[in-house]
Amino acid sequence: MGVERVGRYTYRTTGVAIAGTGSVVGPKEGQGPLRAYFDRVWDDEIQGETSFERAERRLLQESQEVALDRAHWAWDDVDAAIGGDLLDQIVSTNFAGRQHGRPLLGLFSACAVFTEALGLGAILLSSAPMKRVLVSAVSHHMAAERQFRYPIELGVQRSPTAAWTATAAGSAALQAGPGELVVESVTFGRVVDFGSKDPNDMGSAMAPAAFDTIARHLEDTKQRPQDYDAIYTGDLGDLGIRLLEALGDRQDLPLAGSVDDCGRSLYDLKRQDVHNGGSGPGCSAGVFCGPLAKRLEAGDLNRLLLVATGALFSPTTYQQGDTIPCIAHAVAIQRQSSKEGIP
Amino acid sequence: MGVERVGRYTYRTTGVAIAGTGSVVGPKEGQGPLRAYFDRVWDDEIQGETSFERAERRLLQESQEVALDRAHWAWDDVDAAIGGDLLDQIVSTNFAGRQHGRPLLGLFSACAVFTEALGLGAILLSSAPMKRVLVSAVSHHMAAERQFRYPIELGVQRSPTAAWTATAAGSAALQAGPGELVVESVTFGRVVDFGSKDPNDMGSAMAPAAFDTIARHLEDTKQRPQDYDAIYTGDLGDLGIRLLEALGDRQDLPLAGSVDDCGRSLYDLKRQDVHNGGSGPGCSAGVFCGPLAKRLEAGDLNRLLLVATGALFSPTTYQQGDTIPCIAHAVAIQRQSSKEGIP
Repeated sequence: MGVERVGRYTYRTTGVAIAGTGSVVGPKEGQGPLRAYFDRVWDDEIQGETSFERAERRLLQESQEVALDRAHWAWDDVDAAIGGDLLDQIVSTNFAGRQHGRPLLGLFSACAVFTEALGLGAILLSSAPMKRVLVSAVSHHMAAERQFRYPIELGVQRSPTAAWTATAAGSAALQAGPGELVVESVTFGRVVDFGSKDPNDMGSAMAPAAFDTIARHLEDTKQRPQDYDAIYTGDLGDLGIRLLEALGDRQDLPLAGSVDDCGRSLYDLKRQDVHNGGSGPGCSAGVFCGPLAKRLEAGDLNRLLLVATGALFSPTTYQQGDTIPCIAHAVAIQRQSSKEGIP
Repeated sequence: MGVERVGRYTYRTTGVAIAGTGSVVGPKEGQGPLRAYFDRVWDDEIQGETSFERAERRLLQESQEVALDRAHWAWDDVDAAIGGDLLDQIVSTNFAGRQHGRPLLGLFSACAVFTEALGLGAILLSSAPMKRVLVSAVSHHMAAERQFRYPIELGVQRSPTAAWTATAAGSAALQAGPGELVVESVTFGRVVDFGSKDPNDMGSAMAPAAFDTIARHLEDTKQRPQDYDAIYTGDLGDLGIRLLEALGDRQDLPLAGSVDDCGRSLYDLKRQDVHNGGSGPGCSAGVFCGPLAKRLEAGDLNRLLLVATGALFSPTTYQQGDTIPCIAHAVAIQRQSSKEGIP
């Protein structure tokens, strides 16, 4: 147990395991290539709720319930819920807190919030006397679109670089103690702003932040990209991943073949009309807590670096002509048996 | 060094001290009874910036600079900046992050965010290998009013129970190591919702959350209210404090004489036309980092429980008819010399 500092920015955690995960997604996400990996796929986007915002709240709560169930925990076992979402005043996370009644650490880091929560949870469990925390993130396509851009009913045409905010939630039950999937290390991101101003091209805005965090993580831990079976960014999408690879090539850190993106893998980009790919806090959370966690459990992946990416603007800052600051937080997850020889 | 769990909800931290604080406030706050305690008082609300939102960002940055200066730190010494604000997507905190370039842990807990940040920072310093963190919170009257209610230019009449969002920022430089002001313990809050729906009476909505956190803190640490020289809530205001005392009387935990409120003390309620008192994340942050920290340093207070309070609603949830969930996080601060006999 304990946290060790590695290099300047990275914290190595010991004795923290993922006891269970839950992922719940909307119908469009359920039609994508990862369908089989999700715990629940909604057959419509609203599920009888009276608003998309309430549907988002329910999506989060369902993912939390699945994660608790997998971990064989009751809410009463949870020392703290940690997480966030994209709605103003993170109301999904806060209103879910009203139901569960556990101490709540609300975070905001836009679409990077899942790894902020996972990293913070792992450090708290590894060093402080918490035993069990539940980390979560959620987003809902319709709720996000009408908050950030236009109500979907308007049918505004989307630009080719636009991302599709995912209707998805992911929750992970983190415990102090052994387990099959352990959190190895955490690198918290710095804000990086290359001057991008286009809210319909967040992949370009976020790629430099993703690169900054990945480069610092690898430098601190003295690793090469290939030391991970996969490095998954959150929601750079197809364009953002190509920019990330180009940044890597320029800086002598070749990433091609090592990096993929939750948002790009969530949909069939050719068939599903999502342009650049998925985005939103629920994108990395849902893809990790479903597909990636299951691939780790199955031994298909042994070591994964998850790098959720966030664009830290608001509609107000956009309208006031500000650029889009971005951030990325990285968490390394390892399938324990791969290193320790447990079958 | 280390964190010990006390009771069910409270964490006792050792070896964490406040190395310096900075508080910067607007002109109205500078006309109140606490004027002499603030590090800087702005002579107007905008300071030549082109928007209130940019002014809020600058207010935060100035408070961070003062805190660093007091602690004799450079930004490069800071392991992480931790904090939040009230604007959508906490853009003040995030855009300030673009300037300082340190790892950023963005939080959202409405007006309770300062003690969420202070508590989290103290636990991380006490248990994990971080050495120095800077915790901050900010709010700006005009920026908050136009986001949550109406642009101030409309001159909408305010209800008697309405709070006045403070133009204020507070930052505290927290270090692992000894110091005059130490963080003793932290109690993170649960979401409490008594069904209040009036965004113009947040004192009534938040009082039950403040009571819940104070009661759990005292129970966990086996203390009575009088064991603190003062218990300061964040922004319950005049009405909220009276409700808090009434809740205490009902639950056999008399609080009268022990509790006061940052928002109530920030203004002259009779003279300054702020109705119920001050509110906003900057209210508890500015009042702690200026007046309360200075009273602790002077030995006027020896042990303080700071309980920032937050209403976790959004304009959207209000318009959709939802109630107002609330939260409060408590941090106990002690003047070290008082217990250790250092003159």
